[in-house]
Amino acid sequence: MPINGSAATPAEPVEVPRGLAGVVVTETELGDVRGYEGFYHYRQYSAVELAQSRSFEDVWHLMFHGELPDAERSAAFAARTARLRHLPEEVRDALPAISRASALSGPLSGLRTALSLFGASKGFRPVYDIDDDRRREDALAAAAVVPTLLTALYRLGQGLAPVEPRDDLSYAANYLYMMTGSEPDPARGRAIEQYLISTIDHGFNASTFTARVIMSTGADVVACLVGAVGALSGPLHGGAPSRALDTLDAIGTPERIDGWIRERVLAGDRIMGFGHPVYRTEDPRSRMLRGIAGRFGGDMVEFAIEVERRVEAILAELKPGRELHTNVEFYAGVVMDLCGLPREMFTPTFAAARVVGWSANILEQARDSKIIRPAARYVGETPPVPVPPAPVRVA
Amino acid sequence: MPINGSAATPAEPVEVPRGLAGVVVTETELGDVRGYEGFYHYRQYSAVELAQSRSFEDVWHLMFHGELPDAERSAAFAARTARLRHLPEEVRDALPAISRASALSGPLSGLRTALSLFGASKGFRPVYDIDDDRRREDALAAAAVVPTLLTALYRLGQGLAPVEPRDDLSYAANYLYMMTGSEPDPARGRAIEQYLISTIDHGFNASTFTARVIMSTGADVVACLVGAVGALSGPLHGGAPSRALDTLDAIGTPERIDGWIRERVLAGDRIMGFGHPVYRTEDPRSRMLRGIAGRFGGDMVEFAIEVERRVEAILAELKPGRELHTNVEFYAGVVMDLCGLPREMFTPTFAAARVVGWSANILEQARDSKIIRPAARYVGETPPVPVPPAPVRVA
Repeated sequence: MPINGSAATPAEPVEVPRGLAGVVVTETELGDVRGYEGFYHYRQYSAVELAQSRSFEDVWHLMFHGELPDAERSAAFAARTARLRHLPEEVRDALPAISRASALSGPLSGLRTALSLFGASKGFRPVYDIDDDRRREDALAAAAVVPTLLTALYRLGQGLAPVEPRDDLSYAANYLYMMTGSEPDPARGRAIEQYLISTIDHGFNASTFTARVIMSTGADVVACLVGAVGALSGPLHGGAPSRALDTLDAIGTPERIDGWIRERVLAGDRIMGFGHPVYRTEDPRSRMLRGIAGRFGGDMVEFAIEVERRVEAILAELKPGRELHTNVEFYAGVVMDLCGLPREMFTPTFAAARVVGWSANILEQARDSKIIRPAARYVGETPPVPVPPAPVRVA
Repeated sequence: MPINGSAATPAEPVEVPRGLAGVVVTETELGDVRGYEGFYHYRQYSAVELAQSRSFEDVWHLMFHGELPDAERSAAFAARTARLRHLPEEVRDALPAISRASALSGPLSGLRTALSLFGASKGFRPVYDIDDDRRREDALAAAAVVPTLLTALYRLGQGLAPVEPRDDLSYAANYLYMMTGSEPDPARGRAIEQYLISTIDHGFNASTFTARVIMSTGADVVACLVGAVGALSGPLHGGAPSRALDTLDAIGTPERIDGWIRERVLAGDRIMGFGHPVYRTEDPRSRMLRGIAGRFGGDMVEFAIEVERRVEAILAELKPGRELHTNVEFYAGVVMDLCGLPREMFTPTFAAARVVGWSANILEQARDSKIIRPAARYVGETPPVPVPPAPVRVA
């Protein structure tokens, strides 16, 4: 009977910073974010270096299996995940109805529903009933269908037929292919792949934590992912890459940059695409994505770089000492736009990368048998107050 | 620009007990569990007293509005929630497909999918875009359809047509009515109502915490509830009321009780339905439910009471000093069985009560603008290790 030792007195409640900021919930081998060094890593490798030199599938393998694959394993893993892109018939058949029902509420609520249905249809079992290999199979299957679900729902919403996944394309190229119906040129395919690699994981953000809390109850893999998608749909978490691009639109032309920014800074408004709760330096993802955008060049990229330059200069003048730089959202929006993704698919595209990070976290959490169950301090009126008698109904 | 003050050095990580046990995440006015006193309360009232003297809807009103309703408000709130039981057409139409797809994975994964679809179809907005009244409307609507979704999916799984909700029945009686197709006798309707009231809320359990983490990102109400349903589906959390009844079946007859229990206790096995991580006394819900079961009487109830008596006696003999009592699951299973609910619907029925607690917690969390984002300690190989070059693919 493992539960229920009986201590003589209650333990003292443990006081911590609001929002659990800095509170160490668990140990992890998956990676870390060093906000004061402008550096983040997946396992022992710099995430930016991985994005510069590896495929999405290789990094997925790293997150799931703990090591980068050799040539043979790399090919096998890519082929295996490619075969998992296809949807079961009952899920494919339900997508038109899910798309119609989600018209008002956006692509992440469509994904939440469709992924939940997918998990149900696969009969995924609670993780404590299955072994580590089986858990990994479930997590692979669930992550592999996310691009298929997202692009099918997007196309249905546009009145277009979904495009079947192609097994001969990479994860990233196939994503763009299913979205647009045509194979992307190699530059765009690689640009999106690098974006996707760079956003697979990033510390104990709210969606990753949600997935791990749900997993701590022993639930199935998809129950955890569906909760994570819900957390990502919150504007304080996944909601902003398209808004950074909206900022560029709102400014409009180079000569309006200074006036627009000064007005916002003096009003104390937030400028979307700038600032990060963890980084006290330039966001390393931002630097990498700026480089990717630079490979394409063009008016929009030059304009974005000019806006970034002026925001930093004006902030240095008006708010000296503040370290405020572009975050991942600023150039992510630019890169996704250059690759032909519509703005409403920016956060969903983020989900198509992060699902690999979520599932790696789920697999790690599944090896810990301790449920995550914190406490709250009751601050209401002192009980017990006697319950007043039930009211006699007024006819 | 509220984000991004720039402190000169990183804050020290905060060390806490595993699983966040005893860690105070927030303040709440919704209630508390006093494990050492065998007492729990909703706001300022004893939960057991509420279950003994009030309707489910009155307690729902208490949780949502902060006070028990007078006669006029009680009737208005009951009528209002009753009108919300009906499903939008696009959700009703999708239920047969959801039921078929969930055949392998059980009713909670069906609920997870159907509730997600319901939220999408209502176009619920992120909570930070709407006011407190609108949030409460959304939360009422979402909670009110849970019994309708659960019973419709159950009946479809049995090859039966769903039963339309009736607005003239109480929440509890309507639940049994939709499940069975006939109006329950008053004793059974009231027994289930008391069970439902007693399980609306119970501290910061994993599903409630999941709902609050998701809400802290500003997501919509249903995104939070869907995550909570996922957490409840974990065997360490919501998975056991039917297993307690399975224990009674396994023992079988009164003369086998002692031998069966001794064997389990000596083997160190857990006995389902006994022990609780918070209570160091009898579980007050168990005491209340034993009383309810006693109103029905009969062989099963007598057998359950005898098993409880023998478990306590044998434990006192074999493990002196251990406080191990029946938990809510033991008599909850007995009461639900007496009321005609099938075992596979025990945990879903729990969800039909707890959804009110989850949504009250969501509404409270929505008034806090701080995202819940803890930390983890990286314990893997020290980075950065240079990324090896991409493998040349083996043909």
